[in-house]
Amino acid sequence: MSALNIISGLYTDHYELTMAQGYFLTGKKDTRANFDYFFRKNPYEGGFVVYAGLASLLEAINDYRFSDDDRRYLESRGFNKKFIEYLRDFSFGGDIYSVPEGEIVFANEPLLRIEGNIIETQLVESMILNILNFQSLIASKAARMRLVAGNRILIDFGMRRAQGLGAIHASRAAIIGGFNGSSNTYSAHKFGFESTGTMAHSWIQSFEKEVDAFREYARLYPDSSILLVDTYDTLKQGVPNAITVAKEMEQKGHRLRGIRLDSGDLAYMSKKARKMLNREGLDYVKIVVSNQLDEYLIKSLLDQNAPVDSFGVGTSLVTGKDDAALDGVYKLSQVDGKPSMKLSENITKTTLPGLKNIYRYVNGENLFYADGIELENAAAPEIIYHPYYPEKNCSLKGYSYSSIMTGVMKKGNILTHKSLDEAAGYAEKRLAQVPEETKRFDNPHIYIYSIKQYISR
Amino acid sequence: MSALNIISGLYTDHYELTMAQGYFLTGKKDTRANFDYFFRKNPYEGGFVVYAGLASLLEAINDYRFSDDDRRYLESRGFNKKFIEYLRDFSFGGDIYSVPEGEIVFANEPLLRIEGNIIETQLVESMILNILNFQSLIASKAARMRLVAGNRILIDFGMRRAQGLGAIHASRAAIIGGFNGSSNTYSAHKFGFESTGTMAHSWIQSFEKEVDAFREYARLYPDSSILLVDTYDTLKQGVPNAITVAKEMEQKGHRLRGIRLDSGDLAYMSKKARKMLNREGLDYVKIVVSNQLDEYLIKSLLDQNAPVDSFGVGTSLVTGKDDAALDGVYKLSQVDGKPSMKLSENITKTTLPGLKNIYRYVNGENLFYADGIELENAAAPEIIYHPYYPEKNCSLKGYSYSSIMTGVMKKGNILTHKSLDEAAGYAEKRLAQVPEETKRFDNPHIYIYSIKQYISR
Repeated sequence: MSALNIISGLYTDHYELTMAQGYFLTGKKDTRANFDYFFRKNPYEGGFVVYAGLASLLEAINDYRFSDDDRRYLESRGFNKKFIEYLRDFSFGGDIYSVPEGEIVFANEPLLRIEGNIIETQLVESMILNILNFQSLIASKAARMRLVAGNRILIDFGMRRAQGLGAIHASRAAIIGGFNGSSNTYSAHKFGFESTGTMAHSWIQSFEKEVDAFREYARLYPDSSILLVDTYDTLKQGVPNAITVAKEMEQKGHRLRGIRLDSGDLAYMSKKARKMLNREGLDYVKIVVSNQLDEYLIKSLLDQNAPVDSFGVGTSLVTGKDDAALDGVYKLSQVDGKPSMKLSENITKTTLPGLKNIYRYVNGENLFYADGIELENAAAPEIIYHPYYPEKNCSLKGYSYSSIMTGVMKKGNILTHKSLDEAAGYAEKRLAQVPEETKRFDNPHIYIYSIKQYISR
Repeated sequence: MSALNIISGLYTDHYELTMAQGYFLTGKKDTRANFDYFFRKNPYEGGFVVYAGLASLLEAINDYRFSDDDRRYLESRGFNKKFIEYLRDFSFGGDIYSVPEGEIVFANEPLLRIEGNIIETQLVESMILNILNFQSLIASKAARMRLVAGNRILIDFGMRRAQGLGAIHASRAAIIGGFNGSSNTYSAHKFGFESTGTMAHSWIQSFEKEVDAFREYARLYPDSSILLVDTYDTLKQGVPNAITVAKEMEQKGHRLRGIRLDSGDLAYMSKKARKMLNREGLDYVKIVVSNQLDEYLIKSLLDQNAPVDSFGVGTSLVTGKDDAALDGVYKLSQVDGKPSMKLSENITKTTLPGLKNIYRYVNGENLFYADGIELENAAAPEIIYHPYYPEKNCSLKGYSYSSIMTGVMKKGNILTHKSLDEAAGYAEKRLAQVPEETKRFDNPHIYIYSIKQYISR
């Protein structure tokens, strides 16, 4: 493993390896193949997805190699010696086109397109799906919370409930979706964002008296203390003790940064606490809340005018609870220059053949109006059709547009080096261009994405 | 990172580091502390949890160190030089007691108890929660599928939908819960279980004709081919082509292992396919099904007598969908030998002080009857009381019992080296001892877990 990726050719599904060997042994190793990545359903019954994970993916593909140990394992599993020999010098040498990290995207759009020989394009399937599905899921959840939180602070507290090592990239994706920081110090260091936190009940319990626990913490962290006030009795003891310490801090020229409420009715508690603090001239002390928050609870608190400055969000952010996976798939679109498609009992599982591009159309207010999917190198379409019901169509005349896909890897070399800040900034900017009806939580307006009718029937 | 763990002192929540520094600077670095790990609610509205992740956790704790890079980062974030110097030689040197990996456990039981100085026991909190919460969640989901699948084959196909690097340990946990293998080749190699798989639609599409794709795969893998039959038309083309190839294989003395159905009505399709195969004397060809399976769909298929031999399960297994996190917590129970408890607005969030042990009582049929929680070194209780409602109690006279907690780490050294196979075998054996009413999915009987009344009131 590097700092952040598994570096092992085995980090893939078993069938990718048996198929790759099959391509090798049936003389197809130089057959060119194109695959598309897309998902079929927006998560959270929402209207959009924040596309995330691209930089992680490109790095993982760039690092993908078969070590001596990997090859010994394959030998022990009966793989062919010539194929194993081929894997010794294997690295991904294909091309990848993608929408930018942080782009706002929609179901059924071919967001990433890969071109290369059929072995290399097949072997990286599992990583592509694993990385893009997860980070896009979490970035989208984060963005939903950002939409309701306005400019209040949002902090990821999720490491303890994250799905194992998924914690590492969950925190990264949260930043892309609009979070301000995370308690996950490892990810903060590796990805270059702010790690932050408050204190646990154990700190308080390790002192005889709650007020002493507060006092000592404030002495150690005179400019960044956020005191957890619910260990014993929030309003009768925790907040009064925090006020005592805040006033002592003022004597020394410092300011208590905040208090944290982690239980009870957070709307009621935050209002009471705010009044108690203000009554003592401590208007500047921030109120942080946590405890099983999600976008609906954040919205509810703010609808009730709860005076909350900062939200610490865990489980529902880092796991996407209750929608724990984006259903992205990776489908062959072309083999040796010839379009290929899979039919299906279920028409929505039929795939679109050929090399495709996405054009995004904006209206006069610079809001997203529609996405048109067209074959690569064709002009942007003026009319688009529903992929399966051609009687449904939409004119795009007069709308301005641009392609949103660009080359991100060429012959295995990474072409794009966007920082995490840039990806987060891009997501913020693009989210502002999504119409309100598409962003709303209940029955969002389905954004128009469609194709120029190029499937011959 | 080692093969499977982050090796970084930063792989923790930010507040663990600020509190650890606080303990150091307030002269508490040698203060002894005890913490308990427990969860408050069984996932999936179920009646039990398969405790998993212990071996991964012990290894992670054993590996936990602050590298030069970690310490430079802490310095850049303003941490105290003396504290950073202390971290240079830091390693976990405490003791850990736990129920065995693979044990069947229940909400509110103190499953793991840690003893050490307050710095080391605080720093490892985030890893303990991250690892045990996740693997127990997934092992429990796997066990639910095993309960309905009987002795049919269950294979983890979830890597592509797993939560990022969470894929690595999801596959491990699935094996503990009763799965036979996984498509995740990396995890299979690292943890020593079977990696397996079939073929993707892309293999079929890379050939002009489906039958050629089958034929070539069968030639390459004469003893392990499982042909995916739904790329074009399952019953009119896919199954007939599989039959053609199976008969050609028979001529050469081989046997087609199976076919895979990945779409459509799996009950209908599997029955039709079974008949078509049997009509041609291919009774031995197995039927594998996949596509958004979970324990309810597996049960439904079998209730309909679908002739399925093997289930490939992805998303709902590796993410625990729709219950993507176990709510485990880590609470201080004792400081410097004195019991400590947190009160709460919510009585169920009040913690139990002191060092505790779990006794498990079995009935005459060797089925689990109740768990009694008692202080360490006290005799097993003969009457147990509900933790919050002492008027609810239960006599255990005449039931045989044993303690289920043992030392698993002593002064930082791992004491237990159970293989994954052993953990899986233990889970299977113990699951057989859980009463049916506690295992059922709808309104399971709540297993009796309770305490000897030792909280002074």
